Amino acid sequence: MLHIIYLIAISAEAGSGALTAMRRKMDVFGVALVGTVTALGGGSVRDMLLGHYPLGWVQHPEYLLFTVGAALAAAAAAQLLQRLKSAFLLLDALGLVAFSIIGCDVAAAAGVHVAVVVLMGMITGTAGGLLRDIVCNQVPLVLRRDLYATVALATGALYMAQLHYGVGRDVATLVALAAGFGLRLAALRMSLALPVPGRGRPGALDAAGGEG
Amino acid sequence: MLHIIYLIAISAEAGSGALTAMRRKMDVFGVALVGTVTALGGGSVRDMLLGHYPLGWVQHPEYLLFTVGAALAAAAAAQLLQRLKSAFLLLDALGLVAFSIIGCDVAAAAGVHVAVVVLMGMITGTAGGLLRDIVCNQVPLVLRRDLYATVALATGALYMAQLHYGVGRDVATLVALAAGFGLRLAALRMSLALPVPGRGRPGALDAAGGEG
Amino acid sequence: MLHIIYLIAISAEAGSGALTAMRRKMDVFGVALVGTVTALGGGSVRDMLLGHYPLGWVQHPEYLLFTVGAALAAAAAAQLLQRLKSAFLLLDALGLVAFSIIGCDVAAAAGVHVAVVVLMGMITGTAGGLLRDIVCNQVPLVLRRDLYATVALATGALYMAQLHYGVGRDVATLVALAAGFGLRLAALRMSLALPVPGRGRPGALDAAGGEG
Repeated sequence: MLHIIYLIAISAEAGSGALTAMRRKMDVFGVALVGTVTALGGGSVRDMLLGHYPLGWVQHPEYLLFTVGAALAAAAAAQLLQRLKSAFLLLDALGLVAFSIIGCDVAAAAGVHVAVVVLMGMITGTAGGLLRDIVCNQVPLVLRRDLYATVALATGALYMAQLHYGVGRDVATLVALAAGFGLRLAALRMSLALPVPGRGRPGALDAAGGEG
Repeated sequence: MLHIIYLIAISAEAGSGALTAMRRKMDVFGVALVGTVTALGGGSVRDMLLGHYPLGWVQHPEYLLFTVGAALAAAAAAQLLQRLKSAFLLLDALGLVAFSIIGCDVAAAAGVHVAVVVLMGMITGTAGGLLRDIVCNQVPLVLRRDLYATVALATGALYMAQLHYGVGRDVATLVALAAGFGLRLAALRMSLALPVPGRGRPGALDAAGGEG
Repeated sequence: MLHIIYLIAISAEAGSGALTAMRRKMDVFGVALVGTVTALGGGSVRDMLLGHYPLGWVQHPEYLLFTVGAALAAAAAAQLLQRLKSAFLLLDALGLVAFSIIGCDVAAAAGVHVAVVVLMGMITGTAGGLLRDIVCNQVPLVLRRDLYATVALATGALYMAQLHYGVGRDVATLVALAAGFGLRLAALRMSLALPVPGRGRPGALDAAGGEG
């Protein structure tokens, strides 16, 4: 089941990358590449941080067909997708949550500390969007937006907690998926957001001393 | 022969990085560093994606002298290089094509699927320029420009196709070099470009739903 | 001793990342993440370039508590830190120098050429700040600022030179720390800077030919 969700997730992420690339007026190659980086970047960053080789798409190049296809389809259907924005956000939320659980599985198999497992889940869920925004030269949305990474973190923590207390993998997956998905939808619908430090004190930081 | 072309290629790429860094008003250190990242970044990204250690410049630190020297020489000769822009573009095109072929060789030796081999060739040819643009905080040219990455992809595909059909390595290298170089020059001269999706429908994407 | 300095260094770097993230109006999660990336990014980049796994924070996840705590503390104390800017710069300078020496130690243990060792020291000292600026979408300060990376390079070179000539590790560490720290403070106080190529010839580069 997680495999099917994975394919849906990389397709949704590839589509989101393609739309961002189009807003930057990239050509079809750029659209396909940014879509692919968005979809597969999270898992690749996780595996490079873990030293876990070969990377997923190196071993399964057929994933690349999926992401390129999804990116080009999203570009072709861009006007339609605007009207389908809600469907798109649902798929994206599913992708975020699924990626987080898959990332936890991979990291747990590598035998690292459970805190690192949950963090790797979050990285799997969010690093693709981070790379997309870096490549498209914009401040990463994931660092500013309504509980996005927080949902990934909470999903992974819930998943690992269930496994720790002996819940079966299938049940744990379903529960974490449902809870993470619900939290993300609630965040979107209610515009939940974490506090932004320093807000309301304009100018307070203009001369602050961040060095290198 | 490919080794000499490699040295020419990293020098040309280091020079292009140096000029970009100068436009950002970086100091000589930044110029040398951006030049080096541009020249050696493509191969480093490829090797890190493949888990292929040690990296080229870790094993052969003398390459660093080459790239730093070329970057500083390009900075010193910046005004001259403007007049020599055509020569510079020729060297850069040679570098792109040579990097792509070298990247295919390295990836093929790692035993990955041929589609990944060609992709790694493209990454070798283009990731240095991508890193240069990320470090210099501009939307990567490689994602927007006249067949740049497409040339890298086509060169690698042609090279691997020849090897697949039993053509000798030397002949395959020469043919792929010549064809890729010719395609890149044709693209530059005739302003060939891939289509940009969504162009002509201004505003269509302003509210589109790319999430993370 | 170096371990204590290391903890001070990652705290100072996490604080600098947090302040940069606040200026970008990121939420508390973004502040914690950018702080962590700034503090641990340099060592992670070094280890990924060396193929040296597991990464430090994967093996010692307790470092993450340190960086998250320091980032949130810096955010909470942002207005205070403005008044303490000098103290902050001192800590940051200490961090830069300590990171460079630690990076040299790790790279030397990996058995690479001494030039690569010194370079890895510099990468350890500066890559965190580079990642911070990339993630926050600004031209990296480290590439433009008063001897920052140069201090890292000089510290590493001095440290390795002492080891080469038989100086004991403790003495070499102290001497390199003191010299690097002094150089950095001198650079800050006297606004020392490397020359910026092309300055004084405005417009000279506007049409220059950097390609990909």
